[in-house]
Amino acid sequence: MTETHVTRQLAEWIAAPRDLADLPSSVRDEGVRTFFNWLGCAVGGATHETADRALAAIRLFAGPAQASLPGRSERLDVPHAALLNGITSHVLDYDDTHLKTIIHPAGPVASALLAVAEYRPVDGRRFLEALITGIEVECRIGNAVYPDHYDRGWHITGTAGIFGAAAGVSRLLGLDVQRAAWALGLAATQASGLREMFGTMTKSFHPGRAAQNGLMAAFLAEAGFDSSERAIEAPRGFANVLSTKQDYSQILGGLGEIWEAALNSYKPFACGIVIHPTIDGCRQLRHEYGAEVMAGASAVRLRTHPLVLELTGKTEPRTGLESKFSVFHSAACALLRGDGSPTAFTDEAANAPELVALRRKVTATTDTTIHEDQVAIEVDLADGRTVTRFVEHALGSIHRPLSNEQLIEKFERQAEPVIGKTSTSNLMEMTWRLPELADAGKLAQAAAAPSTRAMAAAAE
Amino acid sequence: MTETHVTRQLAEWIAAPRDLADLPSSVRDEGVRTFFNWLGCAVGGATHETADRALAAIRLFAGPAQASLPGRSERLDVPHAALLNGITSHVLDYDDTHLKTIIHPAGPVASALLAVAEYRPVDGRRFLEALITGIEVECRIGNAVYPDHYDRGWHITGTAGIFGAAAGVSRLLGLDVQRAAWALGLAATQASGLREMFGTMTKSFHPGRAAQNGLMAAFLAEAGFDSSERAIEAPRGFANVLSTKQDYSQILGGLGEIWEAALNSYKPFACGIVIHPTIDGCRQLRHEYGAEVMAGASAVRLRTHPLVLELTGKTEPRTGLESKFSVFHSAACALLRGDGSPTAFTDEAANAPELVALRRKVTATTDTTIHEDQVAIEVDLADGRTVTRFVEHALGSIHRPLSNEQLIEKFERQAEPVIGKTSTSNLMEMTWRLPELADAGKLAQAAAAPSTRAMAAAAE
Repeated sequence: MTETHVTRQLAEWIAAPRDLADLPSSVRDEGVRTFFNWLGCAVGGATHETADRALAAIRLFAGPAQASLPGRSERLDVPHAALLNGITSHVLDYDDTHLKTIIHPAGPVASALLAVAEYRPVDGRRFLEALITGIEVECRIGNAVYPDHYDRGWHITGTAGIFGAAAGVSRLLGLDVQRAAWALGLAATQASGLREMFGTMTKSFHPGRAAQNGLMAAFLAEAGFDSSERAIEAPRGFANVLSTKQDYSQILGGLGEIWEAALNSYKPFACGIVIHPTIDGCRQLRHEYGAEVMAGASAVRLRTHPLVLELTGKTEPRTGLESKFSVFHSAACALLRGDGSPTAFTDEAANAPELVALRRKVTATTDTTIHEDQVAIEVDLADGRTVTRFVEHALGSIHRPLSNEQLIEKFERQAEPVIGKTSTSNLMEMTWRLPELADAGKLAQAAAAPSTRAMAAAAE
Repeated sequence: MTETHVTRQLAEWIAAPRDLADLPSSVRDEGVRTFFNWLGCAVGGATHETADRALAAIRLFAGPAQASLPGRSERLDVPHAALLNGITSHVLDYDDTHLKTIIHPAGPVASALLAVAEYRPVDGRRFLEALITGIEVECRIGNAVYPDHYDRGWHITGTAGIFGAAAGVSRLLGLDVQRAAWALGLAATQASGLREMFGTMTKSFHPGRAAQNGLMAAFLAEAGFDSSERAIEAPRGFANVLSTKQDYSQILGGLGEIWEAALNSYKPFACGIVIHPTIDGCRQLRHEYGAEVMAGASAVRLRTHPLVLELTGKTEPRTGLESKFSVFHSAACALLRGDGSPTAFTDEAANAPELVALRRKVTATTDTTIHEDQVAIEVDLADGRTVTRFVEHALGSIHRPLSNEQLIEKFERQAEPVIGKTSTSNLMEMTWRLPELADAGKLAQAAAAPSTRAMAAAAE
């Protein structure tokens, strides 16, 4: 389907005069929670070997030390920092989810914006407003093509995410309508990321590249590098080439009035959102009956939404990253250890004999009457009893959102091992005050591992 | 369609021991002609404002001065040099064509390899062999999905090109099979480029990004950044997600025996290959009847292959870049000026009153019996006569290839205005001797605009 002026109208909205105060307070508050959750994940994932290996290649070619990296001591040029931020914030699959599209919204957008913030200083109000703008664009473009686009095999966090990064950075740079449209064009033509990559390091590369390429789309447009101004809706534009569904009303309808950015949710567990009900229910069973009883189970049966097995049907995961795509491993680990945090998805856990033994007793059937945030669990115990649990809405879903206290606990658990207790506490306090900060770039410095902070301070 | 081990077998071929001498001499010779033609185009396009604007953004973030740029005095880090090379060598639409897929093969591959050559020194034999390997992989992957993939709206030079760059650089780095497979995976997940961008600066950005991202795919794989090893053939891999046709026999059949790289052709005219027959025929008519007679034409009728109007149907191009996608402009310019070179596609030419007047008298109808390298032209003259011309095979096609002498003339006409007569002559002489060069990186330095050459020399 083709429609006129979708890209142009979206660019007009991106470039329009708008202040944070013009947004509903609920949207502003959710924006702060989004950024808070994202930053904790970026610090927490910073020491993953995926980041080390990416840096080993990037380091050969990196430019000026313009941007601090959450949880790392290196500084990188702005676009490479965006790439690294995208990787570190997503590598644990612990970030956030726009449940209507399974987009992880903050990864591409916040990764780009924080990378720019030290280079083109910006106060917290404008930073937060740009973040919300970027996420709004990202989720609306996702809505226009989901689910067909995702079903075909696109990792929508990469493909829609690059638009979010381009829109957010366009807003931060104050691009005019034409340049914002070019930035969307440059984003459209680089939209990529295949679901085949799930379970490898390249999955977290997707939000990283989306952040980097979306950011560069905005800087190229700023420099006058032109592009199509109909990149989303043209016959050979993004929506027609990458999807069989094109619902442009999802992009333009109620823009600035109905906020997709307010619908973000935050993961309590460090894996694909579709496993969350299973982990939640298995943890409840363990809490009720005890780990020892669960260890003796002779069979564990799951009835799940069809997407669960499609996405997370790996029966014999060999690595931590692969185990995130095994509902069998996840169920076993929740039943035995009560764990759905990053420590549940390490190479150790994937190969622990007691977990391997139990996961081999887990079977799953799909049931189209089961919703994506539901699961029905039956466990046959050693004593002949069968215990059951039905999860109506998984923890972390929009119906059972994480509270600020739970977000703080999640942040602490991730950040303290990387940057220490005091720095974590200071960083969280700053982050909650984002809209009041005179210089949002200070957040990047405060989130960095100690030696970078010292360098940045010395440079002042 | 899914098949097993396509990616793996391709990676095995990329990583296999192989010397230039193992290749048929016709393949080696065509490889040299491919590189020769590419380098002239890169120098010739180097001063285009598209390159200036890209550099204005890149400059903000660029890394160490590792690589010279053909036709420019700046030096850039390796990946940014690959991007620039891809832009400059393609921006005039004057490069080369694998006619079975309309891929412009050298852009992504040579742009990446020349960017690496100074950083990881390599002799001419290995450089040429890597170039041919990269182009072979690129064209074979293109064959596997063309025409469905292209028809859907993908700019195949970007999507297949990134595999070529990844394969070529993998070969240059000597990656093992697993790492070569990861590089293909990282390439697959970034394969992008929409045909909607034709007529804007973003078209030449496609081979540039393909070069840069393919190159980084190889460097990331070298650093142990892992990826799917089934990226081409998996259900949610490249071929299934980006195409409705998947003919894997085109990738693996006769690999190392039948050479797609030997089928390259070189453009005599600086525009889309589908306009070549029209320009060729119109130039013939002008030559026969004279420009003044053509200026008085009351109507010009073209019968063309359907793709011609689909790709180049712009009736009122406003810019030089847009005019490359107007068969009407191209016909008028060839009839009046006999010109199909870069000067035929400037902003001046697009708006010249006499060309605008004549192009408005040009009409085109599509005819499925007309082959892609054919055209039937009828011109109604002022004296009432109608003169006609049927082009059986356009100049530059595989049936009427440019001779080495014609390639030299094309190179001179592009390079002399940029780097001068003496440097052009020296550069051409070096380039013909590519297989004998001890250091292929010297070519990048010899192709650079004078002040860079001085800097590079002083650094030694």
